[in-house]
Amino acid sequence: MESKNIAIIGVGLIGGSFALQCRKKGIANRIVGVDNNKMHAKEAISLNLVDEMLELNEAVLKSDVIILAIPVDAIISILPGILDLVKNQVVIDLGSTKKLLAESISNHKNRNRFVAAHPMWGTEYSGPSAAMEGAFENKAVILCDLDKSADDAVKIARSMFEILNMQIFEMNSFDHDLHAAYVSHISHISSFALANTVLEKEKEDRAIFEMASAGFESTVRLAKSNPEMWTPIFKQNKDNILDVLNEHIMQLRKFKSCLEKENWDYLKELIENANQIRRIIQ
Amino acid sequence: MESKNIAIIGVGLIGGSFALQCRKKGIANRIVGVDNNKMHAKEAISLNLVDEMLELNEAVLKSDVIILAIPVDAIISILPGILDLVKNQVVIDLGSTKKLLAESISNHKNRNRFVAAHPMWGTEYSGPSAAMEGAFENKAVILCDLDKSADDAVKIARSMFEILNMQIFEMNSFDHDLHAAYVSHISHISSFALANTVLEKEKEDRAIFEMASAGFESTVRLAKSNPEMWTPIFKQNKDNILDVLNEHIMQLRKFKSCLEKENWDYLKELIENANQIRRIIQ
Repeated sequence: MESKNIAIIGVGLIGGSFALQCRKKGIANRIVGVDNNKMHAKEAISLNLVDEMLELNEAVLKSDVIILAIPVDAIISILPGILDLVKNQVVIDLGSTKKLLAESISNHKNRNRFVAAHPMWGTEYSGPSAAMEGAFENKAVILCDLDKSADDAVKIARSMFEILNMQIFEMNSFDHDLHAAYVSHISHISSFALANTVLEKEKEDRAIFEMASAGFESTVRLAKSNPEMWTPIFKQNKDNILDVLNEHIMQLRKFKSCLEKENWDYLKELIENANQIRRIIQ
Repeated sequence: MESKNIAIIGVGLIGGSFALQCRKKGIANRIVGVDNNKMHAKEAISLNLVDEMLELNEAVLKSDVIILAIPVDAIISILPGILDLVKNQVVIDLGSTKKLLAESISNHKNRNRFVAAHPMWGTEYSGPSAAMEGAFENKAVILCDLDKSADDAVKIARSMFEILNMQIFEMNSFDHDLHAAYVSHISHISSFALANTVLEKEKEDRAIFEMASAGFESTVRLAKSNPEMWTPIFKQNKDNILDVLNEHIMQLRKFKSCLEKENWDYLKELIENANQIRRIIQ
């Protein structure tokens, strides 16, 4: 693939990390950034994530590939306007929900210049300073509804993710949102709720600060994640997340019932069953 | 502190890691192991965690310091018999619950040779092969009910944990179990239940395998933890864990209610509140 002029809309954790990797891997000839947040715009320049910051329209017109790395509600807001402007460019989003987005542009005359992508990478931090070299490497990326995208656009998107050493999977937007609820969104809700559980009691005692263990840190790490990013994800994937959340509460109630009834054999069975997660994560 | 002859009862993740660090830091002159599991006993020798494996009584009589690193129900079973044997030795347990243990030996004539310790370190793996160099470093260790232990026993325990670069905190057994429910035990229940939630649905689709993200891995990592270790912890700390679990389910219901009622402002507030966990974990 020839190196491209790339526009990154949203130079935060995801967009900034994507910029760094595109530069490192020779995907980008020149990278321009777009960001409404003036402080983030300055940081992106000083951290050398992008070559310059431009207004949205100018950035789109000057680029071969436009990457959307902003909250999923903002993607739905601005994608139609971007598609109005493009001719041969490729527009790729990196958002965590796909169904509503797909519906929102289904009748756009330039729909086929768009490729929907969800890279399964992120951290609990946000903003340009959270951008990391080595991001995305060996992670999965889900491409959605590829039958709606032009062949050349799909080819460019595929090449980019391959050069970033990502494993590409394909599914439709509907299935994507269902699975994302299980493998990503519920983890965040669980972690947010766990943090709130502990913070509720921490008012009474500071011992928790001193005792916080690695296991605790691991389960509440995601609770540091950005509300501006996650509220729109939960909003757009409401129905799937409610299904999973109900299941999760039911599973927690099984543990509760074992404790209340002192049913230690069944409690041990529940743990042994949970151990099978080893099949999924090493 | 002069280096000691140390007996490690239970040469698994915790006992094995403790042995490695005691050797590395010069705390141990000679280390003997005790383990009912014959395969673990062999592994401990072949991995060079201990110098030899002995029967319990012989190991106790030949050692200056006896470390208990077995499940908390087994600690309650064998500690009285060990205290029957000791004269000037120090017995230290590394278990995750303290109140029932403290009660079980409160009238033992050699109670003051025992020091209750809970190092806030562990991984989701178990057995001798899970033992790690560098374990415990810079982690907290909670010492309980020190007024019930002899001064010289406390001094030796403190010295050992200091040499292991651990931060020592003191509290009574009752408070320990209350706080441990928040900073450790609930994380495990949450993680077990999350794993069961996903595994329940994974029967329907293998996409989860392919999509599993780092965030998912972080929250379900603890679900790989050993049932033999965790069932007795949950049993012994039942009342505290039930309190925290009820609070956690209530916090999850708040998220559920926001989704059902489409109350996105309150959902965002819940996330912002959870973000305050940054005060506790960096």
